[in-house]
Amino acid sequence: MSLEKFFNPDSVAVIGAAREREKVGHTILANIINFGFKGKVYPINPKADSILGLKCYKSLLDVPTDVDLVVIVIPSKYIIATIEECSKKNVKGAIVISAGFKETGREGAELEKELVKKAKEYGIRILGPNVLGMINYSSRLNATFALGEPTDGEIAFMSQSGALITAILDWATTQKIPMSKYVSVGNKCDIAEKDLFEFWAEDPSCKVISAYIEGINDGRQFIDMASKVTKKKPIVAIKSGNTAAGAKAVSSHTGSLAGSTKAYDCALKQAGIMRARTIRNLFDYSTAFAYQPLPKGKNVVIITNAGGPGIMATDACEENNINLTALDAKTVEKLREFLPAAANFHNPIDVLGDALADRYEKTLETVIEDKNVDAIIVLLTPQSMTQIDETAKAIVDGIQNSKRKIPVIACFMGGNGVKSGVDFLMHNRIPCYDIPEGAVATLKIMMNYADWIDKKVEKIKKFDVDNKAVKKVFEECRKEKRFELGETEARKILEAYKIRIPQAITAKDISEAKKFTSKVGYPVVLKIDSPDILHKTDVGGIKVGIKNDTELEEGFNSIMKSVKAKKPDARIKGISVQEMIMDKKETIIGINKDPQFGPMIMFGLGGIYVEVLKDVSFRIAPITKSDASEMIDEIKTIKLLKGARGEKPSDIDSIIEILLKISQLVTDFPEIMEMDINPLFVKSQGLGSIAGDVRIRISE
Amino acid sequence: MSLEKFFNPDSVAVIGAAREREKVGHTILANIINFGFKGKVYPINPKADSILGLKCYKSLLDVPTDVDLVVIVIPSKYIIATIEECSKKNVKGAIVISAGFKETGREGAELEKELVKKAKEYGIRILGPNVLGMINYSSRLNATFALGEPTDGEIAFMSQSGALITAILDWATTQKIPMSKYVSVGNKCDIAEKDLFEFWAEDPSCKVISAYIEGINDGRQFIDMASKVTKKKPIVAIKSGNTAAGAKAVSSHTGSLAGSTKAYDCALKQAGIMRARTIRNLFDYSTAFAYQPLPKGKNVVIITNAGGPGIMATDACEENNINLTALDAKTVEKLREFLPAAANFHNPIDVLGDALADRYEKTLETVIEDKNVDAIIVLLTPQSMTQIDETAKAIVDGIQNSKRKIPVIACFMGGNGVKSGVDFLMHNRIPCYDIPEGAVATLKIMMNYADWIDKKVEKIKKFDVDNKAVKKVFEECRKEKRFELGETEARKILEAYKIRIPQAITAKDISEAKKFTSKVGYPVVLKIDSPDILHKTDVGGIKVGIKNDTELEEGFNSIMKSVKAKKPDARIKGISVQEMIMDKKETIIGINKDPQFGPMIMFGLGGIYVEVLKDVSFRIAPITKSDASEMIDEIKTIKLLKGARGEKPSDIDSIIEILLKISQLVTDFPEIMEMDINPLFVKSQGLGSIAGDVRIRISE
Repeated sequence: MSLEKFFNPDSVAVIGAAREREKVGHTILANIINFGFKGKVYPINPKADSILGLKCYKSLLDVPTDVDLVVIVIPSKYIIATIEECSKKNVKGAIVISAGFKETGREGAELEKELVKKAKEYGIRILGPNVLGMINYSSRLNATFALGEPTDGEIAFMSQSGALITAILDWATTQKIPMSKYVSVGNKCDIAEKDLFEFWAEDPSCKVISAYIEGINDGRQFIDMASKVTKKKPIVAIKSGNTAAGAKAVSSHTGSLAGSTKAYDCALKQAGIMRARTIRNLFDYSTAFAYQPLPKGKNVVIITNAGGPGIMATDACEENNINLTALDAKTVEKLREFLPAAANFHNPIDVLGDALADRYEKTLETVIEDKNVDAIIVLLTPQSMTQIDETAKAIVDGIQNSKRKIPVIACFMGGNGVKSGVDFLMHNRIPCYDIPEGAVATLKIMMNYADWIDKKVEKIKKFDVDNKAVKKVFEECRKEKRFELGETEARKILEAYKIRIPQAITAKDISEAKKFTSKVGYPVVLKIDSPDILHKTDVGGIKVGIKNDTELEEGFNSIMKSVKAKKPDARIKGISVQEMIMDKKETIIGINKDPQFGPMIMFGLGGIYVEVLKDVSFRIAPITKSDASEMIDEIKTIKLLKGARGEKPSDIDSIIEILLKISQLVTDFPEIMEMDINPLFVKSQGLGSIAGDVRIRISE
Repeated sequence: MSLEKFFNPDSVAVIGAAREREKVGHTILANIINFGFKGKVYPINPKADSILGLKCYKSLLDVPTDVDLVVIVIPSKYIIATIEECSKKNVKGAIVISAGFKETGREGAELEKELVKKAKEYGIRILGPNVLGMINYSSRLNATFALGEPTDGEIAFMSQSGALITAILDWATTQKIPMSKYVSVGNKCDIAEKDLFEFWAEDPSCKVISAYIEGINDGRQFIDMASKVTKKKPIVAIKSGNTAAGAKAVSSHTGSLAGSTKAYDCALKQAGIMRARTIRNLFDYSTAFAYQPLPKGKNVVIITNAGGPGIMATDACEENNINLTALDAKTVEKLREFLPAAANFHNPIDVLGDALADRYEKTLETVIEDKNVDAIIVLLTPQSMTQIDETAKAIVDGIQNSKRKIPVIACFMGGNGVKSGVDFLMHNRIPCYDIPEGAVATLKIMMNYADWIDKKVEKIKKFDVDNKAVKKVFEECRKEKRFELGETEARKILEAYKIRIPQAITAKDISEAKKFTSKVGYPVVLKIDSPDILHKTDVGGIKVGIKNDTELEEGFNSIMKSVKAKKPDARIKGISVQEMIMDKKETIIGINKDPQFGPMIMFGLGGIYVEVLKDVSFRIAPITKSDASEMIDEIKTIKLLKGARGEKPSDIDSIIEILLKISQLVTDFPEIMEMDINPLFVKSQGLGSIAGDVRIRISE
């Protein structure tokens, strides 16, 4: 059901409205009235006749009309009964402020389940329980018990911590951050990320979605949903509980089961969500998204009235892989016409400490027309001649005078001395920061989001595979209560998904062996094949590196002789002749099932690279071709695959294909809990990859 | 000469004092008067009788008394003459505000040299040229042309960017940052880091030194000096121009030659300077150093009234390797006595959203006595019942009521709503930040500094080596105009510094060869030794992996036979028998000479680890034993040396020894420009390391 009437109700009832100023039920009613809600407001309290000048009703049932939204502030034990009353008043949504549910333990969790069941039955959407409430500036509705006056703007904020909203509300007002919607989701028994993000994606009064997330319940659904939303509007999110200790704090806080850090990292990345590390980042990024167009490239120019901050911004650009563009020769020529000779005409452009507003304005107007420039950062320090307010105005004018719409971000360094200029810029939709690094980090995030928007939506590739064969293997294993698959079974699965494994036959005699090597070539490995011999080496049952027919014959005979001598009773099926993979790199593909997000695919170089350097990349399955390609590019040792030190490049395309096939396999068969192809031998470009060994564990 | 009279003069003359309000010479005089300087102030201007109510002198020579400090604001061309006048008035220091020196090119540089020469001659210390000036709160002297009122406090700030001071002055006043001394060093023709740091190290009105550094002239001297100062007082510094692009901007800005980023990273680390990445970091860290004692350990407790921020702080602690300590059972017991049942009694301690000031105070008082706790972070969000000011007071009281002096840092999240609380805390010497990550990062820096203070001052170890042998080799090479040393010469140098190289002899016959192997053991390598044979392989002149006497004989004979057949005329000295190093790890030790800091020592694992992963560590020579040990520990692949995957640990002590010997070598012989020991074979613990190959380049 849509959240339309939840966010924009015609009428609101506060169930548990209180006369006593210190009570939450009073504050909420006062907030609704004071913030200027235009619809009907009904306080409900069996013991009062009127509160804050409004007629008070003994029960919701006494209200003369239907009610769209209720805010519930009564003890948890009475809530089920109240929800039943709501159903009679055609209530569309309920904000359950009250605590005493899942977060308190098993009993509370039962009560919450009951609440959800009833609400579903009656078609009532629930926010909470255990929440601060909800603010929607565009309907002038403040249904929270927070202090402070919400501002107007285009940023919607969803928070799993109500207290954080109280801090952000205060901060946003002070710093003129255009945040205007706040939703405290608490226990998320019903309304969660999915509902809010999808609603805001279509809400014209919201331009940027921001969120504080501790945990997500349905991981894979979240990725699918959010990756669609982010193609329409940016989502900026803080994910906390990133570390082992942090995650412990999360579960004691909201009772939500936190997935592993890695899984969240992948999920947010694959959903195109822009990650903020701190609340300050969240404001910085969201404001820029709300106010400025996205950059069309990575070329930045810096305009400054001081060398030092210019260098700091330059450092930050380089650290963030942002290109300090070379200006067009004509631009430099124009700058020379009006800037003093001592100025720096190249990027970063130093207009010098005595620059008045007009010098800033002319410089901005000149630079903004340069086609080499995708974004501009304007820095200001309050020197003795600096015109703070006039320069702020000059920046706004400079932008408005140009038809070229590129992002311009300001950084006015200082405190009260520059405040009026900062406020003027923010009011005129120019994000303004106090340190150069803040401006640059924001620009970087805008560039990342522009890349995401440009990225084509890819279909998940489907290979034509033999599902039935795999199903059969799993069924057999399960029947025999074996959940760790042996090599033979695991090989069957790879074969069914057309992943190459080393070729092998069991040869009864030398001529059969030679027939095989004439097809696959040398070198090969010889291994005795006998159900009675476990330790092949002990009986001289293995020869590696067989290079030609002569060695093959010698090896075959020597194994047979040795085995017969040392184990005369063994039943011998023959000698297994196996292709030996040469000129290869060893890589590893792994699968681990995350409780929130399902199967995660890992890729890395084998051996010490995985074990010591932990140089691996992850994605949540299913993955697209570009996901696979990116995860290979992400490892630090990628150069070794691309042909470092004069070596031939490895067959990366074949790794991509195998990653996609594994992704398909683990998506087709959710019973796969763990899987490792280790090593995956990768040969030179064009020669493919071969799964050297594989291990699979299925669910019990 | 001491800077005492420079910072605390009895009289100041402003040479170039101006009547016109918009002139720098006016602003400076006004600042000196308005800030309340208690000594004599003499405006000097040939065209004025009085300025700002003070009698004005035509020339410095007309001033009736001696003058301690002059501030010079006249065009650069007149300055030499002025300095001569200064000498007659017994001037101790001159602040040269005027530009037009080194920063403008060759001519300016010449003028600057002349200025320095004269000043040295007359014993006058010069600040600048090209500076904003200097502020010293403790002598109530504001000799700058910056706007704004400096605050009182214990932080001294040195800046290579004058404009940055204007921004920081404004910011510090607004945010109540206790900065009270500002020195703009400009071209640093005389007064530089060394002078200021050493003066402030002894200045009781300074508790923390902070700095914005673009470049340093005498690198090694800087490290020696700063590492002594930081043992007395913390230095917090921003080093900008960290990247290639940034460094370019630096040189066009101040004309100082920027050393490479790596060298600066090492220099600041080796000097014990705490690095700030942004101006905000600089304030955050400096304030904490000014106000709070250093932590005695890494165990932190977090007190919060909201789960979300508690998790954020926890995340930040884990990322920074700060331990969220387990509280003593008795502490938890005491907390249970007064905290509500729903509170979290374990770290992070959640006192809940309805906590009033008294709950914070009791919690703080309880926790501060716990011996497991080395530092406390108090978080607050402004919820509806939260008492902002009272809680701030409760924190101050809680600390004062305890005899245990451990650092307490606050984080009040919000804006104007919490400002009075923040101001109260700052006024009472409790650093207060607006995001949890800011508080945690600050605590981390305090811990790092505490580690530095605890670190023993080590003497540089001196090995008993044969300098003369090395000197002789270099002299011979130079005589022959060879600057790249051959293997034989490089081996001599290693031998002189007692660094093991593979043992080798040239054997004339098999019996000599056997005598050698009976001493050093097998395996060995055989190589033909002939001045006429360059490409030994082509003539069958090399055999590797000789494992026993039989193979030695066969190999010896076969080489001789092959060489005689293929190159019958070659003069043969014999066959070189070389120890083959087995069971070893390949590492690399390198030397690169930095223009600012001299020889830098690099260490890493050889091969792809260096080439692809760039996994190396650096230090500036000379290094101490703990420097060497730390640089080995710093590489990411250290586990490979410590015995990953069941291998024996490598002989790390022998690497340390070789690093120290190389450090001594390059310090003894500044002519070494580059040097690589690659590979340095490291054997198992106790078995030493052997330089496989070495390459040295000396200066021309």
